[in-house]
Amino acid sequence: MFSDFHAYIQKNTRLNEGQIQLMLSTAVKRTLRKNEVLLHQGEICRHKAFVARGLLRGYRVTEDGTEHLIWFSSRYWWTLEPDSYHNQTPSDYIIDALEECDVILWTKDAFDELLARIPELKTFSDQLVSRNLSITRERVFQSLSATAEEKYDAFVKSHPEIFARVPLHMVASYLGVSRKTITRIRRAQLGR
Amino acid sequence: MFSDFHAYIQKNTRLNEGQIQLMLSTAVKRTLRKNEVLLHQGEICRHKAFVARGLLRGYRVTEDGTEHLIWFSSRYWWTLEPDSYHNQTPSDYIIDALEECDVILWTKDAFDELLARIPELKTFSDQLVSRNLSITRERVFQSLSATAEEKYDAFVKSHPEIFARVPLHMVASYLGVSRKTITRIRRAQLGR
Repeated sequence: MFSDFHAYIQKNTRLNEGQIQLMLSTAVKRTLRKNEVLLHQGEICRHKAFVARGLLRGYRVTEDGTEHLIWFSSRYWWTLEPDSYHNQTPSDYIIDALEECDVILWTKDAFDELLARIPELKTFSDQLVSRNLSITRERVFQSLSATAEEKYDAFVKSHPEIFARVPLHMVASYLGVSRKTITRIRRAQLGR
Repeated sequence: MFSDFHAYIQKNTRLNEGQIQLMLSTAVKRTLRKNEVLLHQGEICRHKAFVARGLLRGYRVTEDGTEHLIWFSSRYWWTLEPDSYHNQTPSDYIIDALEECDVILWTKDAFDELLARIPELKTFSDQLVSRNLSITRERVFQSLSATAEEKYDAFVKSHPEIFARVPLHMVASYLGVSRKTITRIRRAQLGR
C-alpha cells in the first residue's frame, strides 16, 4: 500500500526520499470493506485519506431521504470532507467505500505538520485544491448548461473507469438526472 | 479606494501596517464603467482583483449563445478566473461590471511575491480558496437537490443585496432556472 503512495508522490512532486519517508512515518494504513463508511454524517472529518486501491464516494442525504452523490474518489485520489476537516466541524457528507479499498490516513495535526515542514508538499497540496476547485466549478457550469445526454456523455468520456464500476443509479445521482432518463439515454445509445 | 482595502484587510487578517503598505505599493486602481469587461473570453487572466465598490459577474457563453452566470463578485470580494490566472492560459470565462466598479489589481507576479513575503497573507489566501471551494460545492449540491423555488428562495436569502441590484434573468441564469419559471415563482410569491 505504501509503495503505491511512494510511486504516486515521486511521479507528481519533487519530494526527496527523506521527505517521503517522513510522510509515511506519520501515516496509517486502513482497508475498508465494500460499503464500509469512512466518514459518517455528523462526524468530524479527522483524516486526510489517500486512495491506494478501490473507489469511494462522497454523498449527502436530503430530508426526503434522497442520496446526492457529489464526488467519486478512485485510485490515486485524495478523499476527505474539506469543510469538516479544516474547521473540525460535523460533516454534512458521508464517505463510503463502493469496493474494497486501501486507504492511507493522516490526522489533520500530522498533515499540518508535514505541510509546515515540507514546502514542496504545501505547493503540491495547493495545486490539488486548485484543481479540485476547477473541477467543481466545471461541474456547476455543466449542471447549468448541459442536457442530460451531454452530461452522461461527458461522464462516460472523462470517467470511463468509474462508469464501468458503479451502478447506473449512482451515475444518475452524480449527474442530477433521473434514473428513468439515464436508462432511456443508455438504451438509445446501445441501439445506435 | 485603498482605504476600503485597508479596512477590509485589517478586519480579516493579522497583517501589520508595513505589510498592508507593501501590498498597496504594488497595487493598481481601476474604475470600470457599467458593462465594461475586465476579462474577455480567450484572454489570459493577468490580475487578481479586489472589489472595493460595485458588482461584477463571471459568466461563460455556450455555442448556442446562451450566457451561464457562474459567479457574482460584490464589494469586498475578490474576482479572477482561477484556472487562467494560475496557469496563464486563455480564459473560458468573461468577467464584466454590472455597475460602475472600483477594483484594485495586482499582477500575478506581484501577488506571488506578496504571498512569499507575507506568510499571513498566504494563510488568508488559502482560507479564501477553501471558502470558495466550499461555496462552489454547495452550489453543486443545490443544483442536484433543490427545486427551482428552493434555489430562488436560497438565493434571495443569502444574497439579498445582489438580488436587489440585478435583473431577474441574471438570477435565472445563475440558478439554472428558466426565465419563465423564475417569473412564475416571483409572481406567486408576490401574490402570497
